[in-house]
Amino acid sequence: MKQTTFKSGAGFAQHLDERDELAPYRAAFVASDAGLIYLDGNSLGRLPVRTIERVRATVEKEWGQGLIRSWNAGWYQASARIGDKIGQLIGAGPGQVLVSDSTSVNLFKLVMAALTLRPERDRIVSDVLNFPTDLYVLESCVRLLGGRHHLHLIPSPDGMTADLAALFAALDKQTALLTLSHVAFKSAYLYDAVAVTKQAHRAGALVLWDLSHSAGAVPVELDRWDVDLAVGCTYKYLNGGPGAPAFLYVRRDVQETTLSPIWGWFGRRSPFSFDLHYEEAEGITRFLVSSPPIVSLQAIEPGLDLILEAGMDRIRRKSVQLTSYLIYLVDTVLAPLGFTLGSPRDPACRGSHVSVRHPEGYRINRALIEEMAVLPDFREPDNIRLGLSPLYTSFADVWTAVDRIRQVVEQERYRHYPLERLPVT
Amino acid sequence: MKQTTFKSGAGFAQHLDERDELAPYRAAFVASDAGLIYLDGNSLGRLPVRTIERVRATVEKEWGQGLIRSWNAGWYQASARIGDKIGQLIGAGPGQVLVSDSTSVNLFKLVMAALTLRPERDRIVSDVLNFPTDLYVLESCVRLLGGRHHLHLIPSPDGMTADLAALFAALDKQTALLTLSHVAFKSAYLYDAVAVTKQAHRAGALVLWDLSHSAGAVPVELDRWDVDLAVGCTYKYLNGGPGAPAFLYVRRDVQETTLSPIWGWFGRRSPFSFDLHYEEAEGITRFLVSSPPIVSLQAIEPGLDLILEAGMDRIRRKSVQLTSYLIYLVDTVLAPLGFTLGSPRDPACRGSHVSVRHPEGYRINRALIEEMAVLPDFREPDNIRLGLSPLYTSFADVWTAVDRIRQVVEQERYRHYPLERLPVT
Repeated sequence: MKQTTFKSGAGFAQHLDERDELAPYRAAFVASDAGLIYLDGNSLGRLPVRTIERVRATVEKEWGQGLIRSWNAGWYQASARIGDKIGQLIGAGPGQVLVSDSTSVNLFKLVMAALTLRPERDRIVSDVLNFPTDLYVLESCVRLLGGRHHLHLIPSPDGMTADLAALFAALDKQTALLTLSHVAFKSAYLYDAVAVTKQAHRAGALVLWDLSHSAGAVPVELDRWDVDLAVGCTYKYLNGGPGAPAFLYVRRDVQETTLSPIWGWFGRRSPFSFDLHYEEAEGITRFLVSSPPIVSLQAIEPGLDLILEAGMDRIRRKSVQLTSYLIYLVDTVLAPLGFTLGSPRDPACRGSHVSVRHPEGYRINRALIEEMAVLPDFREPDNIRLGLSPLYTSFADVWTAVDRIRQVVEQERYRHYPLERLPVT
Repeated sequence: MKQTTFKSGAGFAQHLDERDELAPYRAAFVASDAGLIYLDGNSLGRLPVRTIERVRATVEKEWGQGLIRSWNAGWYQASARIGDKIGQLIGAGPGQVLVSDSTSVNLFKLVMAALTLRPERDRIVSDVLNFPTDLYVLESCVRLLGGRHHLHLIPSPDGMTADLAALFAALDKQTALLTLSHVAFKSAYLYDAVAVTKQAHRAGALVLWDLSHSAGAVPVELDRWDVDLAVGCTYKYLNGGPGAPAFLYVRRDVQETTLSPIWGWFGRRSPFSFDLHYEEAEGITRFLVSSPPIVSLQAIEPGLDLILEAGMDRIRRKSVQLTSYLIYLVDTVLAPLGFTLGSPRDPACRGSHVSVRHPEGYRINRALIEEMAVLPDFREPDNIRLGLSPLYTSFADVWTAVDRIRQVVEQERYRHYPLERLPVT
């Protein structure tokens, strides 16, 4: 009887895949070991096929043959060129996005810049759903500025969703900056960025969104939403490669009124004049520090081209279908096995991953990786995160993953794994 | 007559190449377009042959197949593992060097850390030979700390060498930090790091060396010299690739007494616990911020292995021979054409590049690149920098380059180039 249910489940997934207009994009990514269900594209996106050739050309032609001449032949403009492409995905007109450094370093730069724009205000508002490294960066900014600022962290009522009422109430005349992760890393809770940005502006605060879990996965319209600042990584839904350099956004009118806290030659007017004193470059360029890691940087571009071609509307549509389908399976197949949903039910409030919670989550996750050819990831204390990347995740992947999770739990295949955590989970 | 002189010159170069025990290493680097004389390894080192395979494996196997699992299979330790290899080249025992971020960001981190170790002191000493981006970083640190610190820049008597007497006189009871480029980027002036470090310590100041132009080119013994802090890039003599991540050194006993100004999850104790508050990791790890660009990072390693195999003693010996030979040719062939030497004559005071100065330096440099298949670089106002990388620069390269410079000047082949500078020179 159960067997029949799952067969028909697989059939339904197949039906959804046949109707999926983005299905052809799956072939644009390198397939890994046979049968692997990869559900961690929200942590490290898959390798686009075209990226292999792009990296090879960067290394063998541009570095090996072009040598130093390649700086004038494209490398020098790469941070801005690739930044503008990301801009197209996040609703930012040209000249407002750069690719450089890591997300945390970019966040540091923009937070420090933002605080100098509101010198009379001493409050920074964020919440506990924000990615912890963002909170660490904020703590370090507070420390550097002499402890004058107060970091106000709004709790979550359920560890899963934001308390917007409390957030709005915290935005007072002392608030210099509100900064949040647009999609929460654990629950995939998606903020109403328009409402939140508007509310912060009403209080006279600046708004900085971390788009790491939203760029390439959910619609973002920075210019239209009147966002001041944003950062994000390129190695999740943008498929830019492990630790690929991150991006930053500074709205055009904000660019001229503030400075980066780290002055380097790539952010200087005429860097090759080698003058002894810093003078900031015009516009967004001043937020560069020094030469970016070109091989990792240029590896980002083919993945962006795929997303631009597929279109964010279609990507978001399929993302909602994938996560909704997964939640349906969680309710019907996994809930009876002790799982609870760790993500919002309303797709309007959800990014492109779904967390499922189980008291044995850590060991179930290990069994999935080591025995079942399913690759999710784990987030303390009990979340198995299932990341669904519309360009290469199929509905059959979702069905198979849930079926394998069921097997691990029903057969107690997680019991022989230690509770001790591996370095990277 | 002149013809005969050059023939015998070429013969002498050939003789030196035949006796060169490092000559076989030339084949370990990718040869670029036929006949190109590459003298810019001090700006971007050549591509090691083995790096091609290493990058391919990183992209296709580790990213494409291993996916997120590769973080546990080596990526997570790469900053420290590759850092320790660099440590072997710069006389630093294990656990004191990390590869991360850019040189400028690392400098920012260490300068800010250093200044908190000397809170009662308000002077930073450097000199005008320091790489300008280092000075910009210092200026930004002074600004961030409220302008309380004073940046004291020692002039150079000739734009080429340091004024050690003035430097030592500036080291007073108010000096928190002395920071210099170990080898000056324009003239290749090499500091007596032992004497300078000792003098700074006598004044109670910390010492931070920028090793960008010395790592892999001149002997460095950080532990033995009792240096406190150091940074450096990996894309010059270390042949790590364009914009490859940089390194930082913090002496073991200094590590526990200070913090990075930028707190990120990779510098936190148990980053995957995702606690809301930062607690610094033990040791050098606290100077990491977040995930490094893995493809660019791992591309550094094959070049380091070559240098470790060749040995810094042999590399330095050949470097001195190459630069001495070049200076001999400058004196005999180029001086009569209006060139002057822009580098120290004493090899004990010289790194691995030689600057030659000429009023038409910029246009001569362009003609060399565009017509003569010689690739040096240019540094304002009139320096043509000729970088000699012992692992792949031959004595014949040096001879041919000088001969082509002679032709450009004698035949006035530079005259049709504009004086306007290209973006990257």
